[in-house]
Amino acid sequence: MIIVFKKTLIAISLAAASLVGATSVAAENVDLLIKNATVLTMDEDRNVYENGLVAVKENRIFAVSDGSNLKEFKAKKVIDADGDIVMPGLINMHTHVSMTVFRSLADDVPDRLHRYIFPLEKKLVSRDMVRIGAQLGNVEMLKGGVTTYADMYYFEDEVAKTVDEIGMRAILGQTVIEFPVADAANADEGINYAVNVIQKYKDHPRITPAFAPHAPYTNTTETLQKITELSKKYDVPVMIHLAESDRENQVIAERSGGLSPVEYMADIGALTPNLIGAHVINVSDSDIALLKKHDVGVAHNMSANIKSAQGVSPAMKMQEEGLRIGLGTDGPMSGNTISTMDEFNQVAKVHKLVNKDRAAMPPIKVIEMATIGAARALHMEDTLGSLEVGKLADIIVVDTKAPNMVPVYNPYSVLVYSANAANVKHTIVDGKILMQDRTMTTVDEDKIRAEALEFADKVRQTVIESGEVVQ
Amino acid sequence: MIIVFKKTLIAISLAAASLVGATSVAAENVDLLIKNATVLTMDEDRNVYENGLVAVKENRIFAVSDGSNLKEFKAKKVIDADGDIVMPGLINMHTHVSMTVFRSLADDVPDRLHRYIFPLEKKLVSRDMVRIGAQLGNVEMLKGGVTTYADMYYFEDEVAKTVDEIGMRAILGQTVIEFPVADAANADEGINYAVNVIQKYKDHPRITPAFAPHAPYTNTTETLQKITELSKKYDVPVMIHLAESDRENQVIAERSGGLSPVEYMADIGALTPNLIGAHVINVSDSDIALLKKHDVGVAHNMSANIKSAQGVSPAMKMQEEGLRIGLGTDGPMSGNTISTMDEFNQVAKVHKLVNKDRAAMPPIKVIEMATIGAARALHMEDTLGSLEVGKLADIIVVDTKAPNMVPVYNPYSVLVYSANAANVKHTIVDGKILMQDRTMTTVDEDKIRAEALEFADKVRQTVIESGEVVQ
Repeated sequence: MIIVFKKTLIAISLAAASLVGATSVAAENVDLLIKNATVLTMDEDRNVYENGLVAVKENRIFAVSDGSNLKEFKAKKVIDADGDIVMPGLINMHTHVSMTVFRSLADDVPDRLHRYIFPLEKKLVSRDMVRIGAQLGNVEMLKGGVTTYADMYYFEDEVAKTVDEIGMRAILGQTVIEFPVADAANADEGINYAVNVIQKYKDHPRITPAFAPHAPYTNTTETLQKITELSKKYDVPVMIHLAESDRENQVIAERSGGLSPVEYMADIGALTPNLIGAHVINVSDSDIALLKKHDVGVAHNMSANIKSAQGVSPAMKMQEEGLRIGLGTDGPMSGNTISTMDEFNQVAKVHKLVNKDRAAMPPIKVIEMATIGAARALHMEDTLGSLEVGKLADIIVVDTKAPNMVPVYNPYSVLVYSANAANVKHTIVDGKILMQDRTMTTVDEDKIRAEALEFADKVRQTVIESGEVVQ
Repeated sequence: MIIVFKKTLIAISLAAASLVGATSVAAENVDLLIKNATVLTMDEDRNVYENGLVAVKENRIFAVSDGSNLKEFKAKKVIDADGDIVMPGLINMHTHVSMTVFRSLADDVPDRLHRYIFPLEKKLVSRDMVRIGAQLGNVEMLKGGVTTYADMYYFEDEVAKTVDEIGMRAILGQTVIEFPVADAANADEGINYAVNVIQKYKDHPRITPAFAPHAPYTNTTETLQKITELSKKYDVPVMIHLAESDRENQVIAERSGGLSPVEYMADIGALTPNLIGAHVINVSDSDIALLKKHDVGVAHNMSANIKSAQGVSPAMKMQEEGLRIGLGTDGPMSGNTISTMDEFNQVAKVHKLVNKDRAAMPPIKVIEMATIGAARALHMEDTLGSLEVGKLADIIVVDTKAPNMVPVYNPYSVLVYSANAANVKHTIVDGKILMQDRTMTTVDEDKIRAEALEFADKVRQTVIESGEVVQ
């Protein structure tokens, strides 16, 4: 069905208001009330309310409705959305946030990870770098409507501090890799580092610590199995780059006697519901079946995958077959922006191109992968990914007044084909407004940028001195 | 070479300041001076000045330099760019600006042009619609850094009035098509309409009127030949959709005994330096040679072409072989944004994907197609497309403080991989600041939006009544 929207003539199913906890006649006290909104709930029926409301009490969603019960709420703070789109905060399922300080370096170097990024990181990754880069990236993501992100990098305890301070939500995966890196001399030290981060942040209300073995081919079987066991012991996610590159295919085939990366991971017992694979490009139908069987989460990173010319993940097929799949941006040296919204149109369009079908990957499927799909892929769908009563209050308001957003016949189309990150007007996490009218409320953006620019000078100096920059 | 930028350590060639008309010791009076800028000149040597300046006198560029001669200018108005990127205004080589009022309608309908858009236009295109849609689109483009656009639509005299009023630059092509449309009962009436628009606007300082036969397959040979002759008589461009769709291939092959659309156009004498072909997807090497031989301009519309699943134009090859080629967004029902900047990353990344080469289509090549390349394709490179002394003063300032733009090691990379339309801070056309700090200076944006939203209500009503919207 084609949706023609606002003053609904052909309507998305407009179900009755879903109200829990707001049944009495007396006004209900809430902390935040967003009214006059085009509410995309992303609930199971994908209900959309045209003049809807969302009420928040403490850090939870207290009511979502078509607005007819507006008078039942007495709110400490009211946002009049004036028709703007209100939707679940976006979830960025895969990034390396601290790498913002390297963004725009050597973008087009072939075999860049091994020839450029690993050597660069060897020289420059430090606690300071991780903190400074994460601060900048957090601001970028919140201003782009990302309320939760999944990160894989070093010194993740530093990232955790920045997430704690700014007030957003994150899954923070401490990298484990066999060769010496800034925070570990080998994989075992990496595992120990990860366990420390996990123990420290296990009970944080907004931070989920995790293991992040770099990839099947850059870790040993022993390391991958050890991490799998520890992830069960601590009940934490394991995030990994999976089925991403030709090099990975070769190394794993040699190691395993011809298995694909996914088959190999199954073979060694590392495919579990804790696992979240990023990229997942080079997968066959039987690989996809294995991922589904083991309930693995998948991060689809279109923008980075086409920039690196690695190819297009069969994400459509995975989505159709009910796998847990969401969108990621990859890191800022890869994507290069880390706002999922800037990824939307590429996801929709490149799947159409590859499938030679203009109807492939319609906008609602993209928005699903950015919200409830990503929540499912993180096994967090009980608390995140949709605007439903009782879920955590991670909400964004998207401006529909900017000229690129006019008019809105179909809000999903407008979000996917027209919006950019700067169209996000307010970002709310855990019931708190972290960006209001494009201004950060919990951190000093100018100070964060100044620190990043200062660090960038160091990067320039190092890149020059290394002499390693010639393509 | 990899560029590591700002406080240049590995530098883009920093040629000596190019100064003409500023050789005396006494201060030179200018109207506008932009200082402390990262100036991307897009001149023949692609000079970049890190703390550069651009001086404007009346509607022309008076000086461009590395900033060392800053004290030689006395300006009525000074913009301190504070390190921001200053570059030529973007040129959108192909759009249908008035269709903003239809944007987000039925985005994913197969064979949409014939099944949906033509019937919709039959009901709704009017002078009012054209004016209202153009006003909205003009604002969107100027806020996205587009200073010149090439349009193909109906009632182009209405578009002309809006362009005249807002102060931007445009090539306005009056559509000619065989079947009855809002402003003509047949192709001959369309030609007459076009001639009237041409006579009226031939001497306008910012408007270039043009013929716009819809496509080879929707016009007859006779019409195409008549237009070719008239374009020579009036010395105006001819803009056409060319080699875009399978349907076109079929119809033209049947009509011509097996020729490709480009061969057919050559055969009937319609390939001339006045011709500007949009899309140009289905072309062989010999077609490309024909286009080059006849000095035809090409508009490459990546975003729309992948959304429609039509395929990827061999734009890289055309660019490498020296054809006149620039970027277009296509119309707002196709692209869907009409800011060329939102197209940049797709152009770079999809060519990498299709060529399986991360080094393909590097950022500087994309910026070329958005500026000097597009100017060449319009045969306007003598006056537009680069910041050089004597050229028309169409200039944009791009914010480098927004978190997605930090840091700037390579300004081309940042523009292509990170920027969005909202990062444009100021837009200057013909020496006049038409957008300053994201606020329009010559029109009332709120009024324009209100009028567009009012018209959108009519569209909704019509779509409903037609019953033609079910996919």
